[in-house]
Amino acid sequence: MNKAEQLKDIQSQSDERNVGIRKVGVKDLRYPITLLDRQSEKQHTVASMNMYVDLPHHDRGTHMSRFVEVLERHKLKLWPSNLDEILNDMRKTFECETAHIDITFPYFIRKAAPVSGIQSLMEYTCRLEAERDGHLAMWFSVDVPVTNLCPCSKEISDYGAHNQRGIIHLRVHTRHFIWYEELIEMAESSASSPLFTILKRQDEKYITERAYDNPRFVEDAAREVAIQLKADQRIDQFRVEVENYESIHNHSAYACITSDDVSS
Amino acid sequence: MNKAEQLKDIQSQSDERNVGIRKVGVKDLRYPITLLDRQSEKQHTVASMNMYVDLPHHDRGTHMSRFVEVLERHKLKLWPSNLDEILNDMRKTFECETAHIDITFPYFIRKAAPVSGIQSLMEYTCRLEAERDGHLAMWFSVDVPVTNLCPCSKEISDYGAHNQRGIIHLRVHTRHFIWYEELIEMAESSASSPLFTILKRQDEKYITERAYDNPRFVEDAAREVAIQLKADQRIDQFRVEVENYESIHNHSAYACITSDDVSS
Amino acid sequence: MNKAEQLKDIQSQSDERNVGIRKVGVKDLRYPITLLDRQSEKQHTVASMNMYVDLPHHDRGTHMSRFVEVLERHKLKLWPSNLDEILNDMRKTFECETAHIDITFPYFIRKAAPVSGIQSLMEYTCRLEAERDGHLAMWFSVDVPVTNLCPCSKEISDYGAHNQRGIIHLRVHTRHFIWYEELIEMAESSASSPLFTILKRQDEKYITERAYDNPRFVEDAAREVAIQLKADQRIDQFRVEVENYESIHNHSAYACITSDDVSS
Amino acid sequence: MNKAEQLKDIQSQSDERNVGIRKVGVKDLRYPITLLDRQSEKQHTVASMNMYVDLPHHDRGTHMSRFVEVLERHKLKLWPSNLDEILNDMRKTFECETAHIDITFPYFIRKAAPVSGIQSLMEYTCRLEAERDGHLAMWFSVDVPVTNLCPCSKEISDYGAHNQRGIIHLRVHTRHFIWYEELIEMAESSASSPLFTILKRQDEKYITERAYDNPRFVEDAAREVAIQLKADQRIDQFRVEVENYESIHNHSAYACITSDDVSS
Repeated sequence: MNKAEQLKDIQSQSDERNVGIRKVGVKDLRYPITLLDRQSEKQHTVASMNMYVDLPHHDRGTHMSRFVEVLERHKLKLWPSNLDEILNDMRKTFECETAHIDITFPYFIRKAAPVSGIQSLMEYTCRLEAERDGHLAMWFSVDVPVTNLCPCSKEISDYGAHNQRGIIHLRVHTRHFIWYEELIEMAESSASSPLFTILKRQDEKYITERAYDNPRFVEDAAREVAIQLKADQRIDQFRVEVENYESIHNHSAYACITSDDVSS
Repeated sequence: MNKAEQLKDIQSQSDERNVGIRKVGVKDLRYPITLLDRQSEKQHTVASMNMYVDLPHHDRGTHMSRFVEVLERHKLKLWPSNLDEILNDMRKTFECETAHIDITFPYFIRKAAPVSGIQSLMEYTCRLEAERDGHLAMWFSVDVPVTNLCPCSKEISDYGAHNQRGIIHLRVHTRHFIWYEELIEMAESSASSPLFTILKRQDEKYITERAYDNPRFVEDAAREVAIQLKADQRIDQFRVEVENYESIHNHSAYACITSDDVSS
Repeated sequence: MNKAEQLKDIQSQSDERNVGIRKVGVKDLRYPITLLDRQSEKQHTVASMNMYVDLPHHDRGTHMSRFVEVLERHKLKLWPSNLDEILNDMRKTFECETAHIDITFPYFIRKAAPVSGIQSLMEYTCRLEAERDGHLAMWFSVDVPVTNLCPCSKEISDYGAHNQRGIIHLRVHTRHFIWYEELIEMAESSASSPLFTILKRQDEKYITERAYDNPRFVEDAAREVAIQLKADQRIDQFRVEVENYESIHNHSAYACITSDDVSS
Repeated sequence: MNKAEQLKDIQSQSDERNVGIRKVGVKDLRYPITLLDRQSEKQHTVASMNMYVDLPHHDRGTHMSRFVEVLERHKLKLWPSNLDEILNDMRKTFECETAHIDITFPYFIRKAAPVSGIQSLMEYTCRLEAERDGHLAMWFSVDVPVTNLCPCSKEISDYGAHNQRGIIHLRVHTRHFIWYEELIEMAESSASSPLFTILKRQDEKYITERAYDNPRFVEDAAREVAIQLKADQRIDQFRVEVENYESIHNHSAYACITSDDVSS
């Protein structure tokens, strides 16, 4: 009898090393997903997915193919309404305590230019980390590209002021659902100006002057976002990072504030 | 009098928002550095640097140019012996509580091929995160590329076994100094085989057979490293991540163990 | 009268430097697109787009917002059937000689595992470069991840053989349409084995033994693909690149063949 | 007698497929190198290297370990003075017609801030592609980060003007040697302003006003560089690409000019 006829299950062997594994699974799996945006429109996108479970100290290995089988069973439904269902299916399939999903994807919002009103799509990179054991915990993250104009450069220069693209990165912990659109609005309102994909001349004039009227250090933008996040009752923990791709340097300016840094 | 004659210091204005900033500074600054390896050889490399300080709630901004000035003042000395000196200079320069350095760089080790003995350099990506307030805390990280051969594939197949490049990522917290070489040895000894830059035919035969004789799931490799890290008295916290770039899939297999998961 | 009332068109100024511009436009614009695959199924994906036109030596600048306006006008139709329509709209909108579209996107194919028949999606990164002046020229590219097993390691070792994930990158020039599925099949049939997203134990055994039975150097795989591309009458120029992420080294093995290197 | 005692040379087998290979070798090998800059100072950096040779249609494979052996033989000498020596060693070692080296590395230049004169290092990413058959051909490339300020935004706005970091990418073909410093100067003088790593307040004022006084579209900057490259007798072919990371959009503006586009 050759090996093929047995196909021994090595993963199910017992393990004597007495070391439990916090997370084991598949990483950087690319899969198309469908989700609902705040306007209740279906949005098709492509996710980069990590799916993990815990493994008790007495088991040698995980059956990796089952992660994608779970995904295939649930993929036709609309996300995120079936997120908890997927996590519970993982817990049942793997007979584990804790199931993790960590998923990153481009998300598009239709925006109107500020003066001409011409519409176009803006892309935001979003992430959802979800962890389920007895209860469900979720972290929502989004990278919001913005313009920031330097208050110091404006003040000391006879004319002009250096400005640049920056990224406001938010990561919030909540047991409630929150729309990415809400986080994006907090970030965009805290910068010198939001960005747009189509801007006609009258819009470009508006954005240029708006940024000049609203100069922001990375410190300023981070504080403005932090105050808004602190005031939102659904959010119990957060981290704000603002990074400006300085137009006068080849490195970035950076500021970070967490929920612990803001007095209630 | 025009603006130029005053050059007002906007950063030094006071701030009324009552939000302290955890970290503010420069990010992704590339600078050449010199360090000492375990053989006491000078090694020249190029680092990607983040340098941050905390900012009290009553100050509006940081003087970003001073980070690079600190760096310039200390760059000619050998790292890491002057790391604490740099952090203390940052604390003095910025009159802050906490100074952070987070630095990532390629690090080269001369290795001899296992049979022929031919020497060549292997690159490892290393990172040092250091934080100084009243005391100094350090996290040493390294990415160690290895070969892992699948125990299941070996067992069920009449011949052959799929194997692939993997990365073992270690991050350890210690108040003592530790050589990257020590962490690399722990990782390489836990995989199916270490990698080499030059292998002659007799070496390739040796490595091929060694990997076949030492099959490792990501779970196995992670556990082997975790046991070694736990036994090292200098290390009080750690995280091991093993990621295999599966040769039979277009995604990775992944396992993660932290110091909290290993019983003493 | 302030500047706003005029909104002078600086881009339309004449230029005296006597230097025509080969390509000018928008780069790294992310937009959702819909396409048809070989099974006539609609596929939703997210593209990274470059759109360029030529600019005569006497014009100072291009009106960048018009690229996205063209895209918005055509985006609801199915790609690639409207590709030439978009290019012609660009030529008309910009009154230019040559319009370019260069678009990269993840593309998914449903594949059945070789023994169990279980289905899952595999991602391939595809690219289309199209250029229209009097006629239309197109280059189709795809990155196909595969397994390659080393013939030398197999021959010299008493057991086992190192293998690894590799990428076969094809770029073909054709005036006819060609399905990405066709290019992917040429690449996958030239490697030691194709990859799959779900493999059960019986599939893993099959793939392991198949790779061992079909060892391939990067040189072998490149030659196998080149012969197939040369035999396809629709393709008049091509480049094949095979890169193996060596499992025994921390660098890649690489081979490149162009259509000029194969005798008819 | 087992396989080990023979260690058959599979690469040296003959090949019947009648397909020559244009380039075969090692890719993405990281190695420390030492070079001389224009001030005749030794500079230590870390390169990412590709080394290729051609392979005649009748040979099956290349001996990959020999590339790194060539590198080890020559690494202690100063680059680029020994570049041709390395290429000729490759031709001799592999008994091939054509040897290729393609090497990318960070390069640092000490610059003084424009008003304060304070010195710091600026990083530029450089690349050298060299090809030797009967004669030696070289392509020098460099990515030069700059500030560009939008002429349209300046003109139409009552105050301010959007500006951003941009990259000017040059690639020139020459049979003579050229300093990266020379290419960098051409690029920096063609933008709204060069960048610096340390800028004190008086420098920031100077740079801000300089950029406002010298607005540049991507088209403008590309033309300015192209005219300088055309005038240099050592350069027989070139490509200039200018990419602005727009501060008002989440995509880039891009312009490309080649030597064929400029009348002599």
